Amino acid sequence: MVVSYDLDPDADPAGLTYTFGGAAPVMSIKPGTALSTWTRDCFAGRVRSASDRVSEVCDPRFINPQTGPFYVEGAEPGDTLAVHFVSIEPREARGVSTTVPFFGALTGTGTTALLHEALPERTWIYEIDREARLVRYSALESPYEVDLPLDPMHGTVGVAPALGEVRNSLAPGDWGGNMDTPEMRAGTTCYLGVNVEGALFSFGDGHARQGEGETCGVAVETAMDTVVIVDLIKGMPCPWPRLESDDFIIATGSAKPLEDAFRIAHAELTKWLAAETGLSTLDAYQLVSQAALTPVANVVDTVYTMTAKLPKAVLKGAAPMGGTHARLRAMAAAL
Amino acid sequence: MVVSYDLDPDADPAGLTYTFGGAAPVMSIKPGTALSTWTRDCFAGRVRSASDRVSEVCDPRFINPQTGPFYVEGAEPGDTLAVHFVSIEPREARGVSTTVPFFGALTGTGTTALLHEALPERTWIYEIDREARLVRYSALESPYEVDLPLDPMHGTVGVAPALGEVRNSLAPGDWGGNMDTPEMRAGTTCYLGVNVEGALFSFGDGHARQGEGETCGVAVETAMDTVVIVDLIKGMPCPWPRLESDDFIIATGSAKPLEDAFRIAHAELTKWLAAETGLSTLDAYQLVSQAALTPVANVVDTVYTMTAKLPKAVLKGAAPMGGTHARLRAMAAAL
Amino acid sequence: MVVSYDLDPDADPAGLTYTFGGAAPVMSIKPGTALSTWTRDCFAGRVRSASDRVSEVCDPRFINPQTGPFYVEGAEPGDTLAVHFVSIEPREARGVSTTVPFFGALTGTGTTALLHEALPERTWIYEIDREARLVRYSALESPYEVDLPLDPMHGTVGVAPALGEVRNSLAPGDWGGNMDTPEMRAGTTCYLGVNVEGALFSFGDGHARQGEGETCGVAVETAMDTVVIVDLIKGMPCPWPRLESDDFIIATGSAKPLEDAFRIAHAELTKWLAAETGLSTLDAYQLVSQAALTPVANVVDTVYTMTAKLPKAVLKGAAPMGGTHARLRAMAAAL
Amino acid sequence: MVVSYDLDPDADPAGLTYTFGGAAPVMSIKPGTALSTWTRDCFAGRVRSASDRVSEVCDPRFINPQTGPFYVEGAEPGDTLAVHFVSIEPREARGVSTTVPFFGALTGTGTTALLHEALPERTWIYEIDREARLVRYSALESPYEVDLPLDPMHGTVGVAPALGEVRNSLAPGDWGGNMDTPEMRAGTTCYLGVNVEGALFSFGDGHARQGEGETCGVAVETAMDTVVIVDLIKGMPCPWPRLESDDFIIATGSAKPLEDAFRIAHAELTKWLAAETGLSTLDAYQLVSQAALTPVANVVDTVYTMTAKLPKAVLKGAAPMGGTHARLRAMAAAL
Repeated sequence: MVVSYDLDPDADPAGLTYTFGGAAPVMSIKPGTALSTWTRDCFAGRVRSASDRVSEVCDPRFINPQTGPFYVEGAEPGDTLAVHFVSIEPREARGVSTTVPFFGALTGTGTTALLHEALPERTWIYEIDREARLVRYSALESPYEVDLPLDPMHGTVGVAPALGEVRNSLAPGDWGGNMDTPEMRAGTTCYLGVNVEGALFSFGDGHARQGEGETCGVAVETAMDTVVIVDLIKGMPCPWPRLESDDFIIATGSAKPLEDAFRIAHAELTKWLAAETGLSTLDAYQLVSQAALTPVANVVDTVYTMTAKLPKAVLKGAAPMGGTHARLRAMAAAL
Repeated sequence: MVVSYDLDPDADPAGLTYTFGGAAPVMSIKPGTALSTWTRDCFAGRVRSASDRVSEVCDPRFINPQTGPFYVEGAEPGDTLAVHFVSIEPREARGVSTTVPFFGALTGTGTTALLHEALPERTWIYEIDREARLVRYSALESPYEVDLPLDPMHGTVGVAPALGEVRNSLAPGDWGGNMDTPEMRAGTTCYLGVNVEGALFSFGDGHARQGEGETCGVAVETAMDTVVIVDLIKGMPCPWPRLESDDFIIATGSAKPLEDAFRIAHAELTKWLAAETGLSTLDAYQLVSQAALTPVANVVDTVYTMTAKLPKAVLKGAAPMGGTHARLRAMAAAL
Repeated sequence: MVVSYDLDPDADPAGLTYTFGGAAPVMSIKPGTALSTWTRDCFAGRVRSASDRVSEVCDPRFINPQTGPFYVEGAEPGDTLAVHFVSIEPREARGVSTTVPFFGALTGTGTTALLHEALPERTWIYEIDREARLVRYSALESPYEVDLPLDPMHGTVGVAPALGEVRNSLAPGDWGGNMDTPEMRAGTTCYLGVNVEGALFSFGDGHARQGEGETCGVAVETAMDTVVIVDLIKGMPCPWPRLESDDFIIATGSAKPLEDAFRIAHAELTKWLAAETGLSTLDAYQLVSQAALTPVANVVDTVYTMTAKLPKAVLKGAAPMGGTHARLRAMAAAL
Repeated sequence: MVVSYDLDPDADPAGLTYTFGGAAPVMSIKPGTALSTWTRDCFAGRVRSASDRVSEVCDPRFINPQTGPFYVEGAEPGDTLAVHFVSIEPREARGVSTTVPFFGALTGTGTTALLHEALPERTWIYEIDREARLVRYSALESPYEVDLPLDPMHGTVGVAPALGEVRNSLAPGDWGGNMDTPEMRAGTTCYLGVNVEGALFSFGDGHARQGEGETCGVAVETAMDTVVIVDLIKGMPCPWPRLESDDFIIATGSAKPLEDAFRIAHAELTKWLAAETGLSTLDAYQLVSQAALTPVANVVDTVYTMTAKLPKAVLKGAAPMGGTHARLRAMAAAL
């Protein structure tokens, strides 16, 4: 059974959801529900042409609107929410990227506070060919064009944080949020520790694709049609968001400096591997050291996000997180 | 006129204020009010003897209770709240410090995530001699005792954050919060940019004294009797908390890595100096480079805090922030 | 023509090469030379069984011996050395990995100086099956075994540094050195800016494989039989080491914190892309942001190393670095 | 007895000493020698007027010349060199400061590699009044002038590094080098661990004064007339440079990110305090946490330097480092 949740495309941006925690649920769903919905792009659709500047057309209070929060029945602190992405498809044949003043990995920022002027503000429009599964980059200052693979994903996926906090949708952390990892694509299950009753799950920030690290701070931003299955693992905590695909288990860490994000992701992967295989911590540390892949997620958000991936072959048949991914994969296939 | 706000010393910890933002005001005050109140210690009084362990006697959800929030009439986003500390005095003749598992500058932590066991958990009780203005350190594992100067201060001072966020009282940031700077002593004015109507000012975390950096993460923690004058500077923004004493202007920055906190504090001090003196940005950068003092505040909280101090002699008579500190100093003298 | 350079397997470790710069050349070679040689493992063969501890069997002054330096005729500051790895093959059917006290990503270290005891010191012996192209991991504390793909590479490749410096072979930097990137495999060309006459090229630190990040600080360490072609690009500087394979151009950066390594690698990749395609800096920044892959190299050495990879398809036929890789690839095929 | 070592003021910059390690000693001295000499400014005198630009008048290979190295008879690895600064006096009545492209705390740099243009290059000339003990700041873009206290010091003090390394005089580290701490003033003793026979001590980079952090990267640079007593503590290692004044013991740490420099300095101060007083490590950690002062040294060099200071009163009469400072202080008084 698929439940639909629709958005009003003409809603006032001021009334949308921009936080994890602190917002009333838009809908209550039972564990195991397949939810069909869509998400606005991170600019709420305000950047429409190459002449639109983010600093002119967007209100800084209303960036990165989320779809949700969804109240998951029975979810309690200490449980883990499992969100399986069944499909993620761009709603339109175009995406947009920009530079944003004092935002990005290769510019001074509000916290890497320097005395430079901002880099020039620019907007790039990408043509998206959903049939050919391509996005087309076109340079602004020369005739250079090149096609890149379409690889749709959600930059922002999360639940309400712990300790009574409410966090803006631009921030990543142990509640998920704006992790901006290209691993969050269709076919992947995301595990999130539940901090409050009902979990209060939201997501958004669709990217037609992004480079690892999301270097300039803005991916190929698009509204997305997305189907997720939302499930619950009772009594199993999950201190940091985890992902699982058919081929990999993936731990995440979000922190600054970037080596701390690396440390979190690898300490979590070590513990996860040990838990699934019975390896001692030192033996798991050793195996992670030789087998992990480490694509960067983002080096641009309020804190940075790293992922640490382990091929499932290394697990020799162990079924991670109680076999949840395989189960949800089968449910998705049956939709 | 002094307004009093009293706390119930027997209140249930679960009912206290542990966030900036997200809590209903306990009282409404007019700008210019002198407020006499007191603050619980960061453990809400739960650590009482050298055998008490934080991990055993405290609930992690109920650490660092704040007194407030106070709704300041007329405060709006874009204004600056000025909080002048008239007096800060330990309520009791003893303070407490501890190690806390995976918290502190010389241990692995939740974000500097390593595979070590936690350092041993210990509690030190300090005798406070309010007449002699001393706190007495006593070693646990040898008979060593030494007196240190009493230097009371508040570790946590802040307002509700921007962007609809609610932040735990353990976190410092541009809203103030858990900055843990020893500069926050009596005679000092703290400037905080207002993000929401009424500002929602709270404070707590009294320290009989602390070293710069608060290296182990816990100062000489005490309940405090405190008098503050709360005033408002209309129409003047303050992007990061500032302090002013009779002798210094002090900019703060809270971020990780620590060099980013340094950058924020010094970029803010440069801009502040330029604004008060008419110096160009580069001339102010040069003068800050030769004249600033840079005591570390904390290297232990969710992000780290640096302060950058400039002797007021460098300002050649300019009255910072429109002369607010001098005005509040005079009001305090007249109480 | 292939020139051979052999090592004395019984040489006193004290007489080997442990620095970039500061060592007399062992041989002079002409640009275009194919050099067949071998490298000791990073422990100079001292760690032979699971009961050998690095802290007991190795002298800290004699870690990571290099083969070289080779004086490249005609190399001058401002030129770029191109080192094409024709083949890299383990000399033996076994490799070794260890934990080393206060070394690695998930432990306190000499610079992340904490008060913890060192993690336990352990040694793992890996069986290498050169026919099946596998390395076998065997846990120490449980019977777990798993095969991982053999993927031989050199952790340390470099030239003499600039500014008269001599750097230990444990350090990575703009001269190359101990970058520990798994991209340094056979079929790859490494570009290194020349800082002194003759370049003084050395390499070593063979790994049968490593995870990205080399998390515990030690890969599957082996002596290697290696053939390289060493060539020279006159009059073209290369500020940071670059790699090129048939499918990717790869920029590197080595620094702390890790975000600075990321920034260097991506700023260099942006400039490289702009230089090869005529894109403006901002257009190149945008394209890198959507197309780059970012595997971590190491988060354990004196500074950390990041790589930023761009699929050559993005270059639309441009021949990077004047077509050097393609030329050396052809030379290698003709050997 | 005072030994003099004079420099040739007209020497070719290319022939001066720019490294720690790698240079032949200029003189051999016995432990206990008082050495009277002078040091060039960091630009070797090339920046002479407000119109001189560092990027135009200086060769990047010849920045920060050192006086030395001095071979100290009997010094061996495992000993500690004690350098007591008897007097440090500007040779001239003027000093110079500048901005330098991509160098400083509030600009992108070679490692915090961003896409900004360099900040404007400027030169400030300071008048030094040696009688009145003042340096006069004069703004370039407005008529602002202000006097600051003269506080002469040496930015660069060190010995040859370990592991056969040779390090440029712009780098700080465990060998000392370019620490740029304002604590290195007359009346202070600097302790440096010996890494090679003869220690090979050099120093330079005189500052008429600097702010803590040396924010723009350049202090009030001057040639200095300096008298030091060089002594040796046999058989006592010193893993990181230490300083001692009449009132404080001061540990240093040089690393990135800045929190690692903080960690090193505080871990060293903790161990030093424990060694002098018999306190356990945890008791010393606690006392450091409440009593240390933490002025930043530099946030601009190849790595950053922090100092951690403890008032000697805390030591209750213990004579640090075997009473060396008191002994050298007496020797200095008797000169």
